[in-house]
Amino acid sequence: MYWKFGTLALTATLFALVAGPLKAQQSTDPDAAKQQIRELDQKWVEAVQAGDADTIANLYTEDGMVMPPNAVQAEGTEAVRQFWEGLLGLPNLSFTFEPTTVEVAEAGDMAYDIGTYSLSYDADPGRVEDEGKYVVVWAKEGGEWKVVADIFNSNKPAQ
Amino acid sequence: MYWKFGTLALTATLFALVAGPLKAQQSTDPDAAKQQIRELDQKWVEAVQAGDADTIANLYTEDGMVMPPNAVQAEGTEAVRQFWEGLLGLPNLSFTFEPTTVEVAEAGDMAYDIGTYSLSYDADPGRVEDEGKYVVVWAKEGGEWKVVADIFNSNKPAQ
Repeated sequence: MYWKFGTLALTATLFALVAGPLKAQQSTDPDAAKQQIRELDQKWVEAVQAGDADTIANLYTEDGMVMPPNAVQAEGTEAVRQFWEGLLGLPNLSFTFEPTTVEVAEAGDMAYDIGTYSLSYDADPGRVEDEGKYVVVWAKEGGEWKVVADIFNSNKPAQ
Repeated sequence: MYWKFGTLALTATLFALVAGPLKAQQSTDPDAAKQQIRELDQKWVEAVQAGDADTIANLYTEDGMVMPPNAVQAEGTEAVRQFWEGLLGLPNLSFTFEPTTVEVAEAGDMAYDIGTYSLSYDADPGRVEDEGKYVVVWAKEGGEWKVVADIFNSNKPAQ
């Protein structure tokens, strides 16, 4: 019986060593993760349309950052919420964005999201019509994708 | 002898299954990877000081992007090289940047790099003095860290 016990113990030990990494791999189907991030982008755009800065702020990590042009970054949930509240308060705002590329790291813990935005609103000398590009860095925290950093700039010449 | 062969075969099979993931884990010491990226940032800053657009362009992947404010992105080695050649040709350029945060994905295949830049040069109405922030996304390709996307914007109010 000794060898049988030995084989079983060996099998169990090696199985435990194998099962960890395999399980981690199974939980990070890259296509599923890309789809999750694209759905969060969709939720984000819908929250913009609904004027819902709280929902947007909760897409970021607790110390996540929005890094807008011509201002210092807004860092942390409350600062991020205030940034979005200001943006969503612009008169007759029209704002949307769309990912072009979403790529997820092999272990499913980090991703980047590159795309384009289009923004317009009423301002003093007339309506502002802007379009540009963005990079959003995502990290998985407690099983959920969250925004670590969000940076964008205009394609249009400086006024 | 049958069980011995069986045990050996089982051990060999399971060892092969274990060794792959373990080897992958060993090759991705996160501190070493962060250090590699900080050294590449240093090399990049030195290439700016040397006016060497070729070296900078080769830090990017073949289809890597620089995404400057007030212009569309420059995509691919030749476009990236031309962008940097233009920037490095600005009169009496002073340009540097410094990473604040470098984070590497668990599998060592993706990283992000967030930091600040400082830029000044002579222009028509007087010297331009700019400072701002950036996000660089890195990916490991053929054992080397390369820039996938590089985006930045100013902290200063629009002129």
